[in-house]
Amino acid sequence: MKKFLCGVDLGGTKISTGIVDENGNIIKSIKIPTMAEKGPDVVIERIEESIYQVLKDTGLEMSNLKGIGIGSPGPLNAKKGIVISPPNLPHWSNVPIVEILSKRLGIEVRLENDANAAAIGEHLFGSGRGVDNFVYITVSTGIGGGVIIEGKLYSGENSNAAEIGHHTINFDGPRCNCGNYGCFEAYASGTAIARFAREGIEKGIKTKIKELAGEGEVKAEHVFEAAKLGDEFAKELVEKEAFYLGVGIANIMAFYNPRKIAIGGGVSAQWDMLYEKMMETVRKKALKPNAEVCEVVKAQLGENIGVLGAAALLL
Amino acid sequence: MKKFLCGVDLGGTKISTGIVDENGNIIKSIKIPTMAEKGPDVVIERIEESIYQVLKDTGLEMSNLKGIGIGSPGPLNAKKGIVISPPNLPHWSNVPIVEILSKRLGIEVRLENDANAAAIGEHLFGSGRGVDNFVYITVSTGIGGGVIIEGKLYSGENSNAAEIGHHTINFDGPRCNCGNYGCFEAYASGTAIARFAREGIEKGIKTKIKELAGEGEVKAEHVFEAAKLGDEFAKELVEKEAFYLGVGIANIMAFYNPRKIAIGGGVSAQWDMLYEKMMETVRKKALKPNAEVCEVVKAQLGENIGVLGAAALLL
Repeated sequence: MKKFLCGVDLGGTKISTGIVDENGNIIKSIKIPTMAEKGPDVVIERIEESIYQVLKDTGLEMSNLKGIGIGSPGPLNAKKGIVISPPNLPHWSNVPIVEILSKRLGIEVRLENDANAAAIGEHLFGSGRGVDNFVYITVSTGIGGGVIIEGKLYSGENSNAAEIGHHTINFDGPRCNCGNYGCFEAYASGTAIARFAREGIEKGIKTKIKELAGEGEVKAEHVFEAAKLGDEFAKELVEKEAFYLGVGIANIMAFYNPRKIAIGGGVSAQWDMLYEKMMETVRKKALKPNAEVCEVVKAQLGENIGVLGAAALLL
Repeated sequence: MKKFLCGVDLGGTKISTGIVDENGNIIKSIKIPTMAEKGPDVVIERIEESIYQVLKDTGLEMSNLKGIGIGSPGPLNAKKGIVISPPNLPHWSNVPIVEILSKRLGIEVRLENDANAAAIGEHLFGSGRGVDNFVYITVSTGIGGGVIIEGKLYSGENSNAAEIGHHTINFDGPRCNCGNYGCFEAYASGTAIARFAREGIEKGIKTKIKELAGEGEVKAEHVFEAAKLGDEFAKELVEKEAFYLGVGIANIMAFYNPRKIAIGGGVSAQWDMLYEKMMETVRKKALKPNAEVCEVVKAQLGENIGVLGAAALLL
């Protein structure tokens, strides 16, 4: 009997759970609120419920599954199957989620941090197929990444390799959430774009960004929208964003010398506005042999990457 | 019969060749001028001569050797055994040095770029013994590095992984030899220290550095010497050097999450003057889980690292 995979993308606000076949086709997926504020016991019950729900929806049984993969925010210990204490999963403290779920469900369960799971998913099912040296980065509210070295996830000494968002690209730069100054994330994340926009508005720069945000908070999406409408300040911010991405990508090339870098996450949705200036920066900043051998592409799996990445942990 | 290793450290100015046992003890080593200006044919002959010389000096024969390892400046293609076109080996263009030497000498020959060879040497014989995730960096006129991932050299898609010297730590920084701005090497190499000193002197800063250099060019060693004599400007430069090293090391931790980072090269000779401020910077800038798991040490192999690293290529 054909074995299916079950992927669980555990996030601070929602749990996405899906049944996936071994070629990376999603048979069915659902999203439910995490209810993170209720703590780990409730969240783990909700994960179980979501798994039984997708099994019911697809007419499958637990015995049709090869196993369950879970992509979770870090910090975590993937080998031991323990979620340590993610900032957006309050009350979690060294929760042995793999042991709990595998006992209750009677099936193999694997755990990986969400960015690493996404890298594995994109490697097996997306733009990284057949690419031995591959880096995936996600650029959204933060910047995370995962790196495939000679066909295998490289997770480092304690699962914290490829913390690409928290490497310094300007030691004189703005403070990052992590406490450091001038991190890649502090310049190139969606949060950073919005912050630069707000700083401009506070200085009195005339821009459509403010109108587009209305009463609400200024977000990165307003910046891209205003740039499309021809707003000069927004266009400048988008150009800067592309430059910062280029700096980070050139650094990734220097460290890992990969054959392909795939960019996912919310900001990558603006690919056409960013690509040219980003690659111009990469060409200027990267070592030639490293740049020549490396393709930079938009990640293919889009919003399904969470579920697909988690499912791919079983392969 | 016990097999010995022969390591050849091919440099722009000298060739160092040594016989090494399998525990990393140098039985005998010699240095001869490279005569790089005479081109590859002469240099390869000189390598051969140096090998015959150390064999004679030790009373060994070619058949006592397991093979010959060569550490060469890059760019090169290690797998194909070809030296491409190193800036300090003029007239070299895709020289198949492994094929040439293995045919002439009738023995296995291996090639690796010098920084990678040094990383392997330090991993097998020095501070990296038994450390699966290990990074070696050399800080001298330039900055190079090699990375051992799960016990194996990671060389990347085309042997250019761990080009640590050429990652940007400040995109607004000074121009680097590679053409980029604000590279780690442009801030923290010996050449950079000397450049910062000269810039200060040109601005009219009073400093002992100038006296120490005398009629000659200001070098990094004069800066460290002046700092030891209490010179304020020199002390400031040494403090900055330690800070820049700390920035680069924190970035290495973010990318590779190693268990140990060893620093070699000329600048590391000033370990005691640099260590405290360097580690203070690392603690401020690195992600905590990455910093906690990683030790930063002075490389153990010292000036023998070239020969030992080349010899280690056979293991």
